[in-house]
Amino acid sequence: MSPVHLEILQQEKSTRARLGKLYTPHGVIDTPVFMPVGTQATVKTMTPEEIKEIGAGIILGNTYHLFLRPGHELIREFGGLHHFMHWDGAILTDSGGFQVFSLGDLRKITEEGVEFRSHHDGSKQFLSPEKAMEIQMALGADIVMAFDECTPHPCTREYAEASMERTLRWLKRCQDTLKTTRTQALFGIVQGSMYKDLRIESARRTVEYDLPGYAIGGLSVGEDKQTMYEVLDYTVPELPEDKPRYLMGVGSPDALIEGVIRGIDMFDCVLPTRIARNGTAMTRSGKVVIKNAEYAKDPKPLDPGCDCYACRNYSRAYIRHLFKAGEILGLRLMTIHNLRFLQNLMAEIRKSIAGDTLLEFRDRFFREYGYEEERQDKQNRPAD
Amino acid sequence: MSPVHLEILQQEKSTRARLGKLYTPHGVIDTPVFMPVGTQATVKTMTPEEIKEIGAGIILGNTYHLFLRPGHELIREFGGLHHFMHWDGAILTDSGGFQVFSLGDLRKITEEGVEFRSHHDGSKQFLSPEKAMEIQMALGADIVMAFDECTPHPCTREYAEASMERTLRWLKRCQDTLKTTRTQALFGIVQGSMYKDLRIESARRTVEYDLPGYAIGGLSVGEDKQTMYEVLDYTVPELPEDKPRYLMGVGSPDALIEGVIRGIDMFDCVLPTRIARNGTAMTRSGKVVIKNAEYAKDPKPLDPGCDCYACRNYSRAYIRHLFKAGEILGLRLMTIHNLRFLQNLMAEIRKSIAGDTLLEFRDRFFREYGYEEERQDKQNRPAD
Repeated sequence: MSPVHLEILQQEKSTRARLGKLYTPHGVIDTPVFMPVGTQATVKTMTPEEIKEIGAGIILGNTYHLFLRPGHELIREFGGLHHFMHWDGAILTDSGGFQVFSLGDLRKITEEGVEFRSHHDGSKQFLSPEKAMEIQMALGADIVMAFDECTPHPCTREYAEASMERTLRWLKRCQDTLKTTRTQALFGIVQGSMYKDLRIESARRTVEYDLPGYAIGGLSVGEDKQTMYEVLDYTVPELPEDKPRYLMGVGSPDALIEGVIRGIDMFDCVLPTRIARNGTAMTRSGKVVIKNAEYAKDPKPLDPGCDCYACRNYSRAYIRHLFKAGEILGLRLMTIHNLRFLQNLMAEIRKSIAGDTLLEFRDRFFREYGYEEERQDKQNRPAD
Repeated sequence: MSPVHLEILQQEKSTRARLGKLYTPHGVIDTPVFMPVGTQATVKTMTPEEIKEIGAGIILGNTYHLFLRPGHELIREFGGLHHFMHWDGAILTDSGGFQVFSLGDLRKITEEGVEFRSHHDGSKQFLSPEKAMEIQMALGADIVMAFDECTPHPCTREYAEASMERTLRWLKRCQDTLKTTRTQALFGIVQGSMYKDLRIESARRTVEYDLPGYAIGGLSVGEDKQTMYEVLDYTVPELPEDKPRYLMGVGSPDALIEGVIRGIDMFDCVLPTRIARNGTAMTRSGKVVIKNAEYAKDPKPLDPGCDCYACRNYSRAYIRHLFKAGEILGLRLMTIHNLRFLQNLMAEIRKSIAGDTLLEFRDRFFREYGYEEERQDKQNRPAD
């Protein structure tokens, strides 16, 4: 049996949402789950103990970043990423594909792999399916992502098709390379841009590899959310019921809920931590931009309904002061809050699945958060 | 009785060092004590819980900074600095004098007070003994520092004498203004530059005010350490035995030990937290500059003899990676370590006082830290 597998506890009545438990060598995780991102062997501003306190049991690491600095060989010498960064929960590492392809002119794609220049020092580097697996074996993550090509948006049908075929060929090479399948689970990635037939073909042919889990990549790359939801509508049914499904790069509250409704079990995104450091808190009644003058004397916590360390102990006025003064504690408190907010959101989603009330929960949450008004305004931009 | 007072438990045999307990409205503190600095209502990078965990029971706040931002009126509305920043230990606030005088050309001194321009926006501001007391009453610190003039170094005798006289006149105005003496203790500040007769006169005339505690200011301003120790040698004996003595702005390990030997009970300095953020750890065997290549693969903790959170859980290689990657967790871990290092140092100092072995402890500590060699090299520069 794969070291990572999903137990489905309940299927929601009126949607594709499922409640489950994801078993990993580093703990059991309730799904659907949002995974905080720890790009450079740290979830920015946080200790592992704080990550646990907000309720997260699985985090991401980034192959591209760790390969360039400090180097995967060093991390291997330290017994893998878990030991290096003092985190005993589960880890998923991406393959570096997304970062490499986002380098644009700095990279050159061939059948063999991708040549690129480091964003640190311009040095020439090379990633391939084999190299991405070698790095991820050194990192020792519980879940290893296949090395794929993430197509840009928009993208021609010809390019999307050729890229999808290459991603499938690369998946074979990834599967052939990964030798640690007793401790590490390889997830394949469905591509195909926004083309329905390509997405369906990509899903079917990826599933043929009989992997422990499947991701949907190439979304949340600039398309509007309605388009993303449509892709999920026709892609997810092609994935096996009994395997975890991971929607990459999604972390706004509305897209998390809509993703779960469409059958997604796992999500990751830098959004909650990034906007936290920019001074934006997610709350049940919408966003709080903490530097705004209206909060200068506000004794309320960031979100009166939140139970996080920041909301239990600090006023908006104090956190605003920290941001105005450039104090690191402000970044810490906002990060803790946003991550806890998403953990609480996922817990409510799971409760709603258990109670078969997910659509009612969505409507209420959207109304309170203010998404309702956005939709009435016909503003078709992403909410985050 | 003053809300802040010192109980002396033991007088060391062969030095002026004393072991004591400092009673405050927010807890009892073992002395000699090092107080971490929380300039802008936060000890940089740390939560109050972490400050407690490293063992600190009293921290500093800065009148100048909090007056300008967020403003003392706001902090008063929030019930004082303790509530505003969620710290229930003791707080000492400086008077703003040191910051204002360090502004140089941006300020103008008159008998009434000091006019200066804010370093934030250039706006015209005014601090006087009365204003400094008003601000500190709003902040609600346990220990309130008198508004003094901190003379630069070097400084002519004429200037030092005139300034000392003004500081004494201002002390009278501070004492007349502070109305909260049941909850706040006013400490006077001895000045007089490096002139022995002025220091002695300043000390004697400050003591005439019969205050709950006395500080020695105008040191650690660029003079060499030997000069500072000499000033302590002739100034401290002028201060009453039964009152706490506070040496302002001193935090290097050697000066802490030498200060205690000369009868000092309290110290503060930004040094440990500032050098931490610059990547320098204080350890029993000297400084560790974490970015140095020699630590790239070093599995040891910052200081193998240290019990802090950073040393219990992380390697030098990992912390170095965090610094190279510009990650905030690196700043946090180094700050925790340096503050804990000084707390442990003060605990060992107190133990040595109790055992009448302080001079032996000093010699051993200096040898291990590497101060011995510095002295042999006749390098007369400050160690930090």
